[in-house]
Amino acid sequence: MVFELSNWSREQLVLIEQALSEWVPSQAGANLGESMRYAVLGGGKRLRPLLCLATRRSMRMQVPEAAMASAHVFDQAALRAACALELIHAYSLVHDDMPCMDDDVLRRGLPTVHVQFGQAMALLCGDALQALAFELLTPSESLVPARVQASLCRHLSQAAGYAGMAGGQAIDLSSVGATLTQVQLQEMHAKKTGALLHACVMMGASCADEGLLSPTMASALSTYAKALGLAFQVVDDILDVISDTKTLGKTVGKDAAHEKPTFVSLLGLSGAQSYSQSLYQEANDALLGSGLKDVQALSALADVVIKRKS
Amino acid sequence: MVFELSNWSREQLVLIEQALSEWVPSQAGANLGESMRYAVLGGGKRLRPLLCLATRRSMRMQVPEAAMASAHVFDQAALRAACALELIHAYSLVHDDMPCMDDDVLRRGLPTVHVQFGQAMALLCGDALQALAFELLTPSESLVPARVQASLCRHLSQAAGYAGMAGGQAIDLSSVGATLTQVQLQEMHAKKTGALLHACVMMGASCADEGLLSPTMASALSTYAKALGLAFQVVDDILDVISDTKTLGKTVGKDAAHEKPTFVSLLGLSGAQSYSQSLYQEANDALLGSGLKDVQALSALADVVIKRKS
Repeated sequence: MVFELSNWSREQLVLIEQALSEWVPSQAGANLGESMRYAVLGGGKRLRPLLCLATRRSMRMQVPEAAMASAHVFDQAALRAACALELIHAYSLVHDDMPCMDDDVLRRGLPTVHVQFGQAMALLCGDALQALAFELLTPSESLVPARVQASLCRHLSQAAGYAGMAGGQAIDLSSVGATLTQVQLQEMHAKKTGALLHACVMMGASCADEGLLSPTMASALSTYAKALGLAFQVVDDILDVISDTKTLGKTVGKDAAHEKPTFVSLLGLSGAQSYSQSLYQEANDALLGSGLKDVQALSALADVVIKRKS
Repeated sequence: MVFELSNWSREQLVLIEQALSEWVPSQAGANLGESMRYAVLGGGKRLRPLLCLATRRSMRMQVPEAAMASAHVFDQAALRAACALELIHAYSLVHDDMPCMDDDVLRRGLPTVHVQFGQAMALLCGDALQALAFELLTPSESLVPARVQASLCRHLSQAAGYAGMAGGQAIDLSSVGATLTQVQLQEMHAKKTGALLHACVMMGASCADEGLLSPTMASALSTYAKALGLAFQVVDDILDVISDTKTLGKTVGKDAAHEKPTFVSLLGLSGAQSYSQSLYQEANDALLGSGLKDVQALSALADVVIKRKS
């Protein structure tokens, strides 16, 4: 059967949106719940959840039909992981947009959370979304095996914390007006956006029977995820220069305005474009050598990351 | 052997401070690590870690000497839980002190994190501390069994999130200048400070062999924790009125200045004092009926909460 990303994504997005709408509370003390739903349910491409579910799909394809009794449990675990990843992403946007950080008033074409609900509520909203991510990963053990819960929390906390996203944002903060080398810029992005994208893949891979993920597969998926994460950021920097605010749904040209180093400022526009191509190649080569029988969804998502217009 | 809280606490505090100093990173991107260590290692009574370790102590005392082979694993798990709880508490203080929330410049007699490191870094500092809490709870399975890791993350995420601490803070925000009933005030505090104190006890109780925590014990510990948590807040409100800034190490009288409802404004000073006594009684009665053989540390901590001067 021919795999079509658009069909697969459409099905997965229905599951993701339903799950997020069910799991992000509306009642949570004053208008905290309202702000959380505003932050999470306001659209977005859901790249992180899709990447997690695409990896789970590859793991499911490894197992012969006869051994699929546990597939439903792991599919549900992956859906929880997918939503948890989106919650971490959403919280980081809420806090990033605040006046003391990027001071952005527009996100996906709508007022940012602090504009809509005030700064104090935006702060709490982000805090509560981070906690909710870990709550989604730790339901009753009858729903998700404890081994998988622990592994998911381990990946997510490391990716979100000081050695990952938060650490990368701190470097980003201190790099305004600074001249970074390509190595330094890559390290910053590997933490700031790469770590969470890497976690998407590794968490999707964790949702499987013990021992199914071989060291070769894990290593290949990790290489794929790192190349994809870096390509994502290179394309982001390119779009910040060549796109417009309406297409992108957020303010363009703000990196240059804030004197932030980017791959475009470092390599030039065409240099950045060919760098993103070589990362794309690296991601696909890793999938081919992974030993995974079906990597179609992962491969197609790499296409999307490179070719996206927003 | 007679139990002395001061001796026991001194020993535990050495372990807690060593562990926090080891686990809170100094290198974490720009000065993020420095801000995290400033927020966490700057003193504090460590009530939450002590409460967690006191509960673990009661669980250990249930098991005959012969079956203590696993005690070390669970002691280490409890130390991780204790530190994770302190990290969540510390992050909440960092975010609470920010200008958009309580706008406080003094904490434990020192400049608050945003005064010292700037608002953007304070925001990231709190975010990274929350992630680190879950990272501490999810080490290799050779250190802590997956079942315990999942249980600890479950308790902590629920206590920190929308139905716990963050939700309580949202209610608190919206209650400025409002007249709350005693029931509403209790509900707000049950979430804002009570949920995390409750988690301290339940997480300490989770660090034990499967099945050791009977339903009677779990229920009694839960009642103890809820009464203690409420008593803690009632005493906090009393101290905000009768103490001075030097003794308390933070600005006094700020509840009245911010027109926040308190147990003192609702019940009067003597009414609040007798209410704290009745909660103390309730906490101790629960311990007596718990079926736990040794509750001396837990009982002594209830004393400390009621009699504290700061």
